[in-house]
Order: sequence, then structure tokens, then C-alpha cells
Amino acid sequence: MAEKVTPRDVDYSRWYTDIVLQGKLADYSPVKGAMVIRPNGYAIWELIQSNLDRLFKETGHVNAYFPLLIPESFMQKEAEHVEGFSPECAVVTVGGGKKLEENLYIRPTSETIIWAMYKKWINSYRDLPLLINQWANVMRWEMRTRLFLRTSEFLWQEGHTAHETYEEAEEETRKILNVYQKFAEEYLAIPVIPGRKSEAEKFAGAKHTYSIEAMMQDMKALQAGTSHNLGQNFAKAFDVQFQDKEGKLQYVWATSWGVSTRLIGALIMAHSDDRGLVLPPKMAQRPIVMVPIWRGEDQKQEVLDYADGVLKELKAKYNVIFDDRDQYKPGYKFSEWELQGIPLRLEIGPKDVAKNALVMVRRDTMEKQFVNRDGILQTVETALDTMQKEMLERARNFQQENTFDVDDYDTFKEIVNGKGGFIRAHWCGNPECETKVKNDTKATIRNIPFDQKKEAGKCLICGGASDGRVIFAKAY
Amino acid sequence: MAEKVTPRDVDYSRWYTDIVLQGKLADYSPVKGAMVIRPNGYAIWELIQSNLDRLFKETGHVNAYFPLLIPESFMQKEAEHVEGFSPECAVVTVGGGKKLEENLYIRPTSETIIWAMYKKWINSYRDLPLLINQWANVMRWEMRTRLFLRTSEFLWQEGHTAHETYEEAEEETRKILNVYQKFAEEYLAIPVIPGRKSEAEKFAGAKHTYSIEAMMQDMKALQAGTSHNLGQNFAKAFDVQFQDKEGKLQYVWATSWGVSTRLIGALIMAHSDDRGLVLPPKMAQRPIVMVPIWRGEDQKQEVLDYADGVLKELKAKYNVIFDDRDQYKPGYKFSEWELQGIPLRLEIGPKDVAKNALVMVRRDTMEKQFVNRDGILQTVETALDTMQKEMLERARNFQQENTFDVDDYDTFKEIVNGKGGFIRAHWCGNPECETKVKNDTKATIRNIPFDQKKEAGKCLICGGASDGRVIFAKAY
Repeated sequence: MAEKVTPRDVDYSRWYTDIVLQGKLADYSPVKGAMVIRPNGYAIWELIQSNLDRLFKETGHVNAYFPLLIPESFMQKEAEHVEGFSPECAVVTVGGGKKLEENLYIRPTSETIIWAMYKKWINSYRDLPLLINQWANVMRWEMRTRLFLRTSEFLWQEGHTAHETYEEAEEETRKILNVYQKFAEEYLAIPVIPGRKSEAEKFAGAKHTYSIEAMMQDMKALQAGTSHNLGQNFAKAFDVQFQDKEGKLQYVWATSWGVSTRLIGALIMAHSDDRGLVLPPKMAQRPIVMVPIWRGEDQKQEVLDYADGVLKELKAKYNVIFDDRDQYKPGYKFSEWELQGIPLRLEIGPKDVAKNALVMVRRDTMEKQFVNRDGILQTVETALDTMQKEMLERARNFQQENTFDVDDYDTFKEIVNGKGGFIRAHWCGNPECETKVKNDTKATIRNIPFDQKKEAGKCLICGGASDGRVIFAKAY
Repeated sequence: MAEKVTPRDVDYSRWYTDIVLQGKLADYSPVKGAMVIRPNGYAIWELIQSNLDRLFKETGHVNAYFPLLIPESFMQKEAEHVEGFSPECAVVTVGGGKKLEENLYIRPTSETIIWAMYKKWINSYRDLPLLINQWANVMRWEMRTRLFLRTSEFLWQEGHTAHETYEEAEEETRKILNVYQKFAEEYLAIPVIPGRKSEAEKFAGAKHTYSIEAMMQDMKALQAGTSHNLGQNFAKAFDVQFQDKEGKLQYVWATSWGVSTRLIGALIMAHSDDRGLVLPPKMAQRPIVMVPIWRGEDQKQEVLDYADGVLKELKAKYNVIFDDRDQYKPGYKFSEWELQGIPLRLEIGPKDVAKNALVMVRRDTMEKQFVNRDGILQTVETALDTMQKEMLERARNFQQENTFDVDDYDTFKEIVNGKGGFIRAHWCGNPECETKVKNDTKATIRNIPFDQKKEAGKCLICGGASDGRVIFAKAY
């Protein structure tokens, strides 16, 4: 541990990269734009996967797997879609030693290949709804890598559903956004603002897009999940019709939705501090580290025996790191596990043995507590639960403290170019006003929040009529 | 269900395809050589993943994720490796709208990119062993698709480990083969023969390769998993050295090992029958289907109430399909779930209600049993356990009955070209004799089994000295 994490107020961007690299969450690869997710980072992704997957299954979804490579002609069937994605694709032109007759695109997203299959599978209303999700890698060409946040290849899940009616598709789109919000808040401990994207910011090929938006510690927004009502666009592009209950042919209604390994970036930036990663307990595969401390052989045996008893008790429920390495001092070990974001540290020295006690340190607050050896499993459980809840509360307070109602453009610019934050401001709905803000300040409309209150006001830019505030912010 | 499964003895190959397509396990995609894994098939893969993943973690492995695209120059660093894989690669030549300076290969396997990273991560013996696994898609160009068995893209896990000594690497290679054997037998109910591959059949770049070989119902072999001792080949190609405990620099020792979605093909071909898929209970996400049967509204309510009580009891432990669809007759429903391989069917009619009983039908034997309503959870549990065990026994008997000791080449050819099977025969160790057998009969040496007995004999081909029998068979 020769290196040190750069403090946030010295260089926020280096701080982030330091945590990722030194915490062994990910690494740069020799392939431009691509990253390697190291075991510490992948362990977080596994928890994202298993928890989201359970939530998807509880809401009636099943998993499937579609091809990585998509024929060029498929990409071109939906006009907005190809325009949005084509420029950022990686293209296979040679296969098995021969030039291909038709180029194949590495999927940037799978609507086209999936709807080509749905045409085979959907004939009647009896085949609907079709509620399929896929866990996969996708690729969108990037030259400037930002670990987890912007890489050519990333891992994600993409849901693709087919329905009889617009209303059903709309219900699905909203239901999934709820799942995403629940997951972000209950598991990642990140409060989010659910809402609808503006026309300019919606998915290429969607009727409309919903998103959840999270605030990072540098006050910037991070879009943490999106859910799209695709209308009949893809059904028409791929000619997917079903016979309804009256025997009439109708085009199918569609949704798609996804979250990606970007969430790991969000998790890091929402909670971590200058010592390194801070993980909410539900996102830690190994939530506890035990560090026995001794001087000399006499103490060693006594401490290890005592610690071993504690370890056995905790192992019934938790995956515990037991750090009894001889060659490192306690302080070194503390720093290492703090850097890696282990939620709870238990220290056991000779004095603790004598007092039938332990020292417990919470990673988020760094608060040190002397706790009784008896009932340690219960104590740890309570501490982890409390930590999970308090991390969400803290993040929510932070978000609220840095969200401002603004009614004039000068103040708006001052905040956006200054300390940043979420700005709730009036907007007339005109894309030109939206573009002007973006050009002037780089801030964008994050979304039109679901909890928007009816409130007569004037557009920040043109002064035109507005009946509610939308969320502006600079974003990742 | 207009279609019918082609019987095995009419056309084995069509029988297999019928089960896959009609059972909705997979489908052909519009991309040549690629398949779609449908929800019924993917559910099996999820069980393969979760169970193997647990076994890997219990043996100290962690997961990570490496880039999909590998620079051409990396592929070329290990001579045998590039020769083996290069001709079957898909190549990306364009990215983000521009011709790339260096071509990128879609990974056919990840040794090269992983060892490029290990060079960054391994410096000292303290960094070893490194026990990493990856769940990923890979691509090896194929024009003739055989669903699950031979497709350009497939899903797999690939373990890549790094060790201080040859012995440790060898121990790891064997340990993993044991894990594969345990998994194949205890979960897939497929008995396998573990052994070492001949030089001709080993992995491109390995020192030696071990495999587990399974017998399908057409007596052909299917390689169900491989584990490679890579020696120092990749460490030398990528210059990965570590400082040992004496402070000397040494090249690292490596292993790699994998199983793929091919296992789903093995599972289908090992157990299924002319009615469709037969799944061992541990490989069924939904192991039970309940079919309530009634005539008229009076019976309906009574039967459904009774069935509902049973359902509630079973749901405590199992994911149960409750098929109370009005528009289909019981016989139709039975066929549908038999086709899809649901292990246990429970039928409930008015007579069963009167007798406080149910009808239970096991998918593998199609045996029909009247069972008591009381203690139904226990009854079902026992039936599923028994079924799991008996399926393995049956497959083992089948394998043993179709394994023959042969000492002359005429008999060998007669069996290989006739009904087929595994042939245990003497071989002198000369690759030329091996090639002759392959050219004459298409049979290959599957492996040199670990349980090979010392037995003086003469090579089947050249009559040269041999001290034990190896396994020959035609293979998928």
C-alpha cells in the first residue's frame, strides 16, 4: 500500500480512479476503451445480478439469451434506432477466415435481433405478454475510458417485453422503473428521482423513456436505470402482429429496460470517502473483517482461540475475512480493508479477551464501539442493518440539501458552474430551450419527475408558460 | 401441439432437434451459426451456473470479467494457440465508424487477454495462487449449427489459475476435473469417464488436457468438460514472472478449464425419450406440475379448493406449475409438460378428492402412483430424490452395457460402424495409429481413463506394446 487515495477535494476524478484501481475493483486493459472487472468489483456485480434477477422473477420475468452479433440489415430496420447506435458500433467483417457477405454488428443493445425472433414466436394473444430479460455484454465504441462509467464493452441486463395493448406496455415500463428504484434505494442505498426523459434525451426508437437519476458526491447526476415504452415501433419494423381475441391482426406493443455495470460506478461515487470504498452491507459479499491483535506467542494463542470462537459464530450467517497474517501490522490491515470497503471491522486484542469484549468499527462512520462478546451475532446483524439504513438516509439528506428551486437563469448558471447540484426549474417544453441550456452550461434535463407538482411558472430560458418544474443537472 | 417428436429409432438427429425446438429450449437465429437460448433452455443453464459457481467458490475461486475483444498481436504470442484458434475467429475491423489500426478478435477463449493482465497483477509468490473464473460468451466460427452442441457463439465458464509450482498447477487441474465429474453425476445424472486426452486431442497451448466423457443414447461420446495444465507456456508468451520465497524470478505455472452450454445438449441426449425432454429434478427450476381435472362447475370448485391446499403446501419448497387452463383438455396438458420435461406430475380429480389422494406420475419412468394427500410434501420430496438417483443409475448401466473390451481391429470396426459404444482397446501411444483409426472409422481416443488398469497388451493397429486400455468412440 505504497499509494494513497487522492482526497476528493484535491481531485474528485483522481479520487474515483484511485478507489477503483487501488481497491482492485477494475483495471485498464490493453484493449482501447475496454476494462477488466477484477474480483472485488465483480463481487458487487454478482450481488446486483442476484438481487435484481430475483426482483425480475418475482414480477413474472424469465431469462433468455440472444446472439451477440446482429446483421447490418437488422440494425437498419428501425430508422431512429440505427441513427442513434450505428456510429458507435464495432463491426465484424471477417469470420472463419473469410470476408463476410453481410457485416455483423456487436450488439449495442438487442431490440432488433430480439424482435426478429419475436416475429417467430408471437402469433396470437395467447403468446402475450412475453416477459423476457437477458444478462449480457454489449458494446458501444468509446475511446476515452472512465472505469465502470464509460467503457466500450459493459455488462448489463436488458428486458424486452411484448404486450397486447399500449396500456399494458405502459404499465410494464412503469413497473420496472419501480423495481429499479426499489433496488437502488434498498440495496445500493442510493436515493433516486424517478421521472420521464425529455424528447431529446429519450432512447433511440422509443415512444418515451423513464429514468431514475441519482446524485453523486460531486453533485453531478448519474442516470442509474432506464425503462422505455417502445410503442409499436419495433413491431412495425419487424412486422410482428398478433391475432387478438376478436381474431383481428394487430401490431404488438413493446418495452425495453436496462441497468448496467455503471451502477458500480454510482455505488462508489455515492458513498465512498478519502480512505477508499464504502459499501452498503447488502452490497458486500464479505461484510465483516476480523483482525486479531497480539504481541508475542503467549498472547497469540489466547487471542486466536478467542477470535476463533467468534469467527465460528459469525460464519453461520456471514462470509467473514479472518486476517491473522503475521507479516503485517494491524494499522496496515485496517487501511487495506478500509480501502476495499469492508463494512464492519472487529478487532480483538488481549484486553478484549480479558473483558469478554470486542472492538467494532463501522466503515461508513468510522465509529468505534466496544461490544460484548456474548450475543455478537445479533450485535453484528443490528449494526449492519443500521448501517444500511443510515447510508440511505445520509445520501438522501445530501441529495435534498443540494437540490435547489431556481427561477432565474443567472442564478441557475451560477449554481451549475459553481458547486453544482440538482436544480428544479420551470421549462416550457420546447427542445430549443433545452438545447440552449445544454450549450450554455453543459447541464441537461435529467427528467420530468413523477412527483412534479402542478405549479404555474415561466420557462427559465424563454419565459414561456410552464406548469411544473423539471430536474436540471450536469451528468455523467 | 400439432407437431410430434420424431422417435429416436426413426431419426435420432431429428429427435434431438425436435425436443429442442418443440420443448422451446432453443431456436435458430437469423444469424448464421448462432442460436437463441429460449427461457426453458436458459433455466437449465441458470441451474448449471448457480451450482457450478457454488462448487468453484467452495474450492477457493472468485469470478472476474475480461474484455470480449482480443488484439490480433496477443493471439499470436503463443504459437500453438494461434494456430489452433485463429482460423475459427470472428474479426472486428471497424469500430466507431473507423477502420481499426489493429484487428480485434472476438475471444474464442481468453488465455491471451487474461495472461496479459496477470503480468500486471503478479509480482511475488504472495500474489499466488490466483484462482479466477469467468462466465462469458465466446465465439468459434461454425457454419453448420447443431443446437447447443455446435454453434458459433456459446456461453461457458473459463477458469484461469496461476501457481508457484508445476505440482500445484497439476493438483488444480485434477481438482477441477473432480468438480466437473461430481457436478455431471450428482446434478446432471450423467456418469462420466475422467481421463487424460492424447497429444493429438489436447488443447492448443496446453501441456496436457484432462476431460470427462459421457455416453449419449446413440452410443456416441460427448466431451462434457476439460481441464488443462498449461505448464509455463502462457507465462513465457506473456512474460509473467514472480519472485519466489528465495527472491529468485520464476515463470508462473498455469491452468485453464471450462464447461459450456454444450452440457445442455448432453443433458437432453442422455435422458430424454420419444415424448420429449426428461430432466433430472435438480436440473428443473419447476420440478412439479399440478393438473386439476373436473367436469362441470360443481366439480370444478371442489377440485380447485382441494388442489389449492396441496399447492400451498408444495410452494413452501418448490416452484410449482399450476395448470388450471380452461381451454385445454388434461391429455393435451400432459403431453405439453411431458415434452418440456417437468419431472413430476400431480393429477387431481373428483375421485382423488373423495379418497384424500392424488395421482403422481414420474416423467422418467412414466410410472403412475396413487399417493395419500397427507404428507404430500414429504412424498414429493422422496419421489424427486429417488428419481434423481435412479436416473444416474440407469445412465450408468446404459454406459456399462455399451462399453466393450476389444482386441482386434475387425471387431472394433464392426462395433464402431454398427451399434456404436465405448470401446476399451490397447493403444501403443503412437499418434499415427490414432490417426489411422480416425481416418478409417471416425472414432477417436476419448481419453486415457484415470482408472486404467496395468495390463500388457498389443496395440489394436500396429500390434506394438501397450500397458493399458484407452477409450475409443465416435464423438459429438
